[in-house]
Amino acid sequence: MDVGERELIRRIRSAIGAPGRATIVGIGDDAAVYEPPGEYELITCDAFVDGVHFRRDFANYREIGAKCMVANVSDIAAMGGFPTRAVLSLAIPERMSTRDIEDLYLGFLDVSKHFSFEIVGGDTVSSRYELSISIALLGAVGRDRVVTRAGAVVGDAVLVTGRLGGSEVGLQILSRGMPRNEKANEAIRRHLRPIPRIAEAQAILDVATPHAMIDISDGLGSELWHIATESEVGIRLMQSAIPVDSAATEFAGTLSSTPEELAIGSGEEFELVVCIPLSEAERTIEHVAAVTGTEMVVVGEVVAASDGCTLVLSDGGEVELPRAGYQHMEPPGDRWGRSD
Amino acid sequence: MDVGERELIRRIRSAIGAPGRATIVGIGDDAAVYEPPGEYELITCDAFVDGVHFRRDFANYREIGAKCMVANVSDIAAMGGFPTRAVLSLAIPERMSTRDIEDLYLGFLDVSKHFSFEIVGGDTVSSRYELSISIALLGAVGRDRVVTRAGAVVGDAVLVTGRLGGSEVGLQILSRGMPRNEKANEAIRRHLRPIPRIAEAQAILDVATPHAMIDISDGLGSELWHIATESEVGIRLMQSAIPVDSAATEFAGTLSSTPEELAIGSGEEFELVVCIPLSEAERTIEHVAAVTGTEMVVVGEVVAASDGCTLVLSDGGEVELPRAGYQHMEPPGDRWGRSD
Repeated sequence: MDVGERELIRRIRSAIGAPGRATIVGIGDDAAVYEPPGEYELITCDAFVDGVHFRRDFANYREIGAKCMVANVSDIAAMGGFPTRAVLSLAIPERMSTRDIEDLYLGFLDVSKHFSFEIVGGDTVSSRYELSISIALLGAVGRDRVVTRAGAVVGDAVLVTGRLGGSEVGLQILSRGMPRNEKANEAIRRHLRPIPRIAEAQAILDVATPHAMIDISDGLGSELWHIATESEVGIRLMQSAIPVDSAATEFAGTLSSTPEELAIGSGEEFELVVCIPLSEAERTIEHVAAVTGTEMVVVGEVVAASDGCTLVLSDGGEVELPRAGYQHMEPPGDRWGRSD
Repeated sequence: MDVGERELIRRIRSAIGAPGRATIVGIGDDAAVYEPPGEYELITCDAFVDGVHFRRDFANYREIGAKCMVANVSDIAAMGGFPTRAVLSLAIPERMSTRDIEDLYLGFLDVSKHFSFEIVGGDTVSSRYELSISIALLGAVGRDRVVTRAGAVVGDAVLVTGRLGGSEVGLQILSRGMPRNEKANEAIRRHLRPIPRIAEAQAILDVATPHAMIDISDGLGSELWHIATESEVGIRLMQSAIPVDSAATEFAGTLSSTPEELAIGSGEEFELVVCIPLSEAERTIEHVAAVTGTEMVVVGEVVAASDGCTLVLSDGGEVELPRAGYQHMEPPGDRWGRSD
């Protein structure tokens, strides 16, 4: 870091602003102190390493900061909750300027301000090599609104929000240095500036009784396997029903793939996958569209565990549901906890 | 990492054990869900990087894991609270074996089990270079038992727990490869296996009304400056009253220092510094000794801000209180938040 650390800290604190009403002690003491929610609390954490989870030649620091925060907010959305407070740990290499660090914080703050939660603490330390970012995010959720991965029931409809495949296409366009038309730029935006589905999850909960929900961080196929494993059920995914992003359709050939392969394997989409009673599917789709403008579609059904997880191809054939899609840069270590 | 990741995750989950009664959803979903405390909640986070905050040639992974966790627990102690739940982010280089990772977790668990709190989530990702560890720790504190750095009042007595300087001496013995006698080994243990002062903070709160409290992570001098700045007061530290660790006395000459310099500058002591009304000092010292066996002594007094922070030397002379002691390995980045 260059000179001006004290000034940087002052600017960050100033950008973060005064603590909210339920925050008794904000930034600057041994710990933050706050009035916890009257309902259940949520906590999730995620780590991000330069060159593994993001690349500085693809995204600016503000985009990197925002996307790391979005990944955490998306986890809170998938539990049925709202984000409330975050703490940040940064390991910062010498070469980063105070301007770079400030940009990173502006990215964190873009998301925290948009979703009305507070950054209440952090730790910045030196790293000898690479930037690494770790975020722990708290949330609140109504006692009767918690949705895990573990409650899917045979007969449930499987729905997804949004359209899939764009994030992977955006990453491939960046990685391969492909020429960019308007559609390509849209896919790149999709990859660099994803939107977590807090409002959609709430809209679902307002009209349906979701049995299981997860956000798409590793890919639709991978997330469906998580639900199946944790819920001890099988899942049939209908290839023809998958909502494919138009960029995936346009670039599939160039990427030696199919649109559906891209949609099933694309990570960091941060769309929701939800299992609800089939009878609630129609009103859920209508309500989510009316309240948020986001489309939802039924992509499959929950079946018995003994039937396994299958992808029903458009020609009627069946194959085992692909577990993972494309590996993003280096494969991340297996996540054992909060973060998928 | 070598083979057996899935087995590692199984072992870690098994070592962590079943979630407690107030934990609704533990490890393995998008976020953990729990019943928050009925009192105030605390959150603190700290990051630790290989070669900056710990060295693998000085400590084994279990010691490293435990010490990182202790640093967080110590922050909760200094607020007047108890630790309740932790989430962990690890960025792990390829060269670490699953055994190494398991050892690191055993260290985290040594501390979480001793202080009866839960590890409810985590994220392990790949790092290209170095191990970095980030811990976010939640705590609970009674609404009338919160102690910040900001409440010290002119006339308060300044007390510290334990004896100071041992951690720095231990680090120097390790760094310089000095020959080891029994006293040297004791100092090394002090450096590698510190104990956070949860019980002592509670004992203080049971008989006194602490106005300000902080734990010694950077050094007594540095922490007193923090209290002075945040409380807008001055502090007079009496050199002759500082409780010097016997290793600091024994090794000061070899280290071209004085015992008091070592005691003022030694970081990672994780002892408490507390400002209380002078009239409460005697009963506090007696009660803490009776309940915990830990000695406390008065080392100074809170004075007006205009008097500044001074070190009153044993010969009666006065100098400005040293702000920082020895730098541990590479200087850490300035901490703007929760972590000192």
